[in-house]
Amino acid sequence: MKKIALFPGSFDPFTNGHLQTLKYADPLFDQIYIAVETNTQKVGLFSFVEKKEMIEESIADLSNVEVIEQPGKLTVEVAKKLNAQFLIRGIRNSADFQYEADISNMNHTLDPTIETVFFIPPKHFTYISSTMIREVSSLGGDVSNVVPAPVVKKLKEKFKING
Amino acid sequence: MKKIALFPGSFDPFTNGHLQTLKYADPLFDQIYIAVETNTQKVGLFSFVEKKEMIEESIADLSNVEVIEQPGKLTVEVAKKLNAQFLIRGIRNSADFQYEADISNMNHTLDPTIETVFFIPPKHFTYISSTMIREVSSLGGDVSNVVPAPVVKKLKEKFKING
Amino acid sequence: MKKIALFPGSFDPFTNGHLQTLKYADPLFDQIYIAVETNTQKVGLFSFVEKKEMIEESIADLSNVEVIEQPGKLTVEVAKKLNAQFLIRGIRNSADFQYEADISNMNHTLDPTIETVFFIPPKHFTYISSTMIREVSSLGGDVSNVVPAPVVKKLKEKFKING
Amino acid sequence: MKKIALFPGSFDPFTNGHLQTLKYADPLFDQIYIAVETNTQKVGLFSFVEKKEMIEESIADLSNVEVIEQPGKLTVEVAKKLNAQFLIRGIRNSADFQYEADISNMNHTLDPTIETVFFIPPKHFTYISSTMIREVSSLGGDVSNVVPAPVVKKLKEKFKING
Amino acid sequence: MKKIALFPGSFDPFTNGHLQTLKYADPLFDQIYIAVETNTQKVGLFSFVEKKEMIEESIADLSNVEVIEQPGKLTVEVAKKLNAQFLIRGIRNSADFQYEADISNMNHTLDPTIETVFFIPPKHFTYISSTMIREVSSLGGDVSNVVPAPVVKKLKEKFKING
Amino acid sequence: MKKIALFPGSFDPFTNGHLQTLKYADPLFDQIYIAVETNTQKVGLFSFVEKKEMIEESIADLSNVEVIEQPGKLTVEVAKKLNAQFLIRGIRNSADFQYEADISNMNHTLDPTIETVFFIPPKHFTYISSTMIREVSSLGGDVSNVVPAPVVKKLKEKFKING
Repeated sequence: MKKIALFPGSFDPFTNGHLQTLKYADPLFDQIYIAVETNTQKVGLFSFVEKKEMIEESIADLSNVEVIEQPGKLTVEVAKKLNAQFLIRGIRNSADFQYEADISNMNHTLDPTIETVFFIPPKHFTYISSTMIREVSSLGGDVSNVVPAPVVKKLKEKFKING
Repeated sequence: MKKIALFPGSFDPFTNGHLQTLKYADPLFDQIYIAVETNTQKVGLFSFVEKKEMIEESIADLSNVEVIEQPGKLTVEVAKKLNAQFLIRGIRNSADFQYEADISNMNHTLDPTIETVFFIPPKHFTYISSTMIREVSSLGGDVSNVVPAPVVKKLKEKFKING
Repeated sequence: MKKIALFPGSFDPFTNGHLQTLKYADPLFDQIYIAVETNTQKVGLFSFVEKKEMIEESIADLSNVEVIEQPGKLTVEVAKKLNAQFLIRGIRNSADFQYEADISNMNHTLDPTIETVFFIPPKHFTYISSTMIREVSSLGGDVSNVVPAPVVKKLKEKFKING
Repeated sequence: MKKIALFPGSFDPFTNGHLQTLKYADPLFDQIYIAVETNTQKVGLFSFVEKKEMIEESIADLSNVEVIEQPGKLTVEVAKKLNAQFLIRGIRNSADFQYEADISNMNHTLDPTIETVFFIPPKHFTYISSTMIREVSSLGGDVSNVVPAPVVKKLKEKFKING
Repeated sequence: MKKIALFPGSFDPFTNGHLQTLKYADPLFDQIYIAVETNTQKVGLFSFVEKKEMIEESIADLSNVEVIEQPGKLTVEVAKKLNAQFLIRGIRNSADFQYEADISNMNHTLDPTIETVFFIPPKHFTYISSTMIREVSSLGGDVSNVVPAPVVKKLKEKFKING
Repeated sequence: MKKIALFPGSFDPFTNGHLQTLKYADPLFDQIYIAVETNTQKVGLFSFVEKKEMIEESIADLSNVEVIEQPGKLTVEVAKKLNAQFLIRGIRNSADFQYEADISNMNHTLDPTIETVFFIPPKHFTYISSTMIREVSSLGGDVSNVVPAPVVKKLKEKFKING
C-alpha cells in the first residue's frame, strides 16, 4: 500500500522549520500533501495562491510533494479523501507539544485509523514561528536566515522593502 | 457551617471535563454554584440561557448544584455574596496550571478568606477544551464522546448538522 | 458520612508549604491523616518518630489531624483501610503538576472510588522543597522563613548549628 | 565604555514586577532606557503619555533611567540608535521563558552584537501580569499590592473607581 | 530502499505505551529493531533475556519487529550497523519532550543521516511510566490495565504476588 | 564600586554553553569568579584541579575571570566573602528555568543583597548538558562541537579514546 501523508498548517508564511520537517518526513512517505488551511475567520498575510507559489518554489528539490488547499474541513476528513493514513506535524517546543498532543488525541477520537507522525526540528530552527517572521518582516527585519529564499522575496514585496 | 463552593467558567460549551470536575467536587460541598461568566467583550457561541439549559440537563443526577450568571464581577465578590468559601477549578495540563496558579494568587490578594480547590480530570478527558469543541463542531465533527448529550444536541442545532 | 482525607508524603522535613496546604484543606474535611511514607530503599534525613514529633508540634492549632506511618503500602490501600475517600496533594509548579497528574491517574486505575484534591500554595512558598531545605540547612543556611519553628529546631540539632 | 541597556515592553500598565526587574538591573548599567512599545495595531488601555507619566513617578528614586517611545521599530534597531549593547527582560514563568528565549534568539539573528540580560522577579510578584491587572481593575478590584501607587491612581481615574 | 528503524529504550518493563508507539510505527517501516539498552551501571528489575521474552510475547501479532540487545553503544552507531535510517521514540508529556528534543539534537550532531520519528501515545496511556509500574507492582498493585499480559505475569513472578 | 559576579556550577565538564554564558556576562562585570562546586557526596568525573585547568585553557581570551573552588558552602556566603554582588546563571530550557527560579528565590531569602543575572544561550547550544556529554564521551562519541578543545582533550584521556 502506498504511504500517503498530509501535512496541514496555515504556513503564513512557510519557514525553514516547515521545510526541515518536510525533509525529515520525505523519505518515509510515497506521497505528501501540504494542506494549506484557509480559515475564513482569520485573514492571513498571504493568500492561498501566494502560499502555494512560495512553498512550491521552496520544495523544488523534493519529489512527491503536492500543495493543496484545505478550506474549512476537518483535517481527518481531508486526509481520508486523499487516502492519507498519516498526518505530519513538527513540534518546536513544550508549549507546541501540549497543543499538538491535544489535537492528535482529538483526531484519534474523530478517526482512529489516521496516525500523526511528529518531527522535532533542529534546535537552531526552533525559535522560528510564522507569527514572529510576519512581525519582524513588517518592521523591515532581515529574515533570510529563517525562511526559504522564495519567501524572503514575497515578504519584501508585501512590505515594500528594498533589500 | 455549610460548605459552599463556586465553580466559575465560561462553559462555552460545558464539556465532559467540566462534568467530571463537578462529580469529583460534589461529595466535598453542601452547595455548588456554577457561575457562568458572561463577559460582555467576547461574544460566545452560546447565550447564558442556552448554557444554563445545557448544564442543568447534563447534571440532572447531581444534587445541590445550581447554575447562575456571573456578569462582569470579580469572582471573589460573587463568591462572598453567595457565602461561598471555596472556588473550584479543573486543571487539564501544565499550561492551564500556570494560568490557574496566577489567578488563585490574585484572588488571594483580593480576598484571603476564599480558597481554591483544584481537581485534575482523568487523562482521557484532558485533551478536551471548549475552544476545540466549538471548532470541531463547526466543521461537522462528532463530539459525542467529549461533551454530555444535551450539549451534543445544542451544538447540532447551532451548526445545523444532521447526526 | 464523615469526610476523611489522607495527605501522603515523605515530609523530610515538613515545610511551610505543607503546612499551608494543610491549612487550606482543614476546613474541608472532618479528619485528615498525614501519612508519612517510610520508604525502606531511600534513607531519609529524619526518622518517622522525628517527623511525627515535628509535624505534631507544627500543627498544634489544627484539630482533627493525625500523623501516621505509611510503610511500603499503596496509598490507595492505606486510604481504604482508614475509610478515607480523598487524597490531598499540593502542587508547587508545572513540573510537580505533571508528576501529580500521573500519580492521580494511576491511583484512579488502582481504585476509582478515591479522589485527589489539589491545592496550590501561595507563590511565596512555591520555591520551597524539602530537598532544598535539607541542602541549605546542611550548609548552615537559615531556613526559619520557610519551615515551621519545630522543624528549624530539629534541623539545627541534626546539623549541630548554633543559631 | 558606558553600559547602556534598553528595557522594551508595552507596560500597559507598569507593574511591581517591572519595577523590581528595573531595580535588579539598575546597579549593572550606567543608563537604562525604558522603551514603551506603541504598537499601532493593538490599542492599549493607556496612551504613551500616560504610561510615561506613571513610570516616571514610579521610578523617581532610580537615577539614569529614561522613558522613551518605541513606535513600530525593531527592538535591536532602537537599541543600536541609542548605543545600547544590552536588552533587559524579566521572566515570570516557564511560558514566559519559552517566548523570551525565542525572541532573544531572533534578536541575535538580527544583530549578534546585542545581548539580552534576564531577571526573575521574586515569586510573590510572578503572578502579576499587566493583562490581569487591567481585568481586575476594570471590575473594581484593588490592585494596590501589585502595581506602584501612581499606577493605582491612574487605573482608578480610568475606571472611575472611588477608593 | 528498505525502511529500517531502531526503537531504543530500557523497557524495564515494556508498557502498553511502548506497545502503542510500536503499533503506530509499524505500518511506516519494513523492519523495526527494538534495542534494549543494557546499561551496566544501573541494574534493572529485569534481565535482557526476561525483557526479550516479555516483549516478543507482547508483540506476537506484529511482523518485522525484532528484539536486540544494545550494550553500552551509542544509539546512532547501533542504528548504522543495522542500516537503520530512523529512530523511533514516544513522547508522553512536556518533560519527556524536552529530554527527547535534546537527545535527538545530540544524535544529529553525532550522525546527521539518522532521523528520529516521534509518536505521542493516546492520553489514557500517557500517565504510565516504567518506573511507576515497577513501584506499584512491588507494592502488590494491579497493573494489568497498563502493561501487556506477558508483563503482568512476569511482574507477579518477580514480586511473588498471587493474582 | 567594582561590579563583581560569581558564576557557580559543577562544570563536570565545562561546555560551550557555559562558555557562551560567560562571554555574554563578561562585558557586564569587572571581575567574574567561576566557582566550581566540589560536592563531597557526589563524586564527579573530573577533579577540581582538572576542571580548573580545562576552564582556564577554554577562557584564555577572557580577562578578569578567575576559577575558584567552592567546597560545601552556601553560594551567597561565598559571594559575600568575595564582595560579589551578583550571581550568574545560564538557563537552557523551561525545566532549568523552574529550578533556577527556585534557587534564586532561596538565595534571596538567605541574602537579599545578592542578585542573580540570567543568560539564555543561543538555541544551538541549549541541548548540551554536562550529563549528556559525559555519557556520549564514555561511549566514544565525538563531542568536539559542543565542548571547548581543552575539554575534548581531557575527555579523550579520561576515556582512552584515540581521536
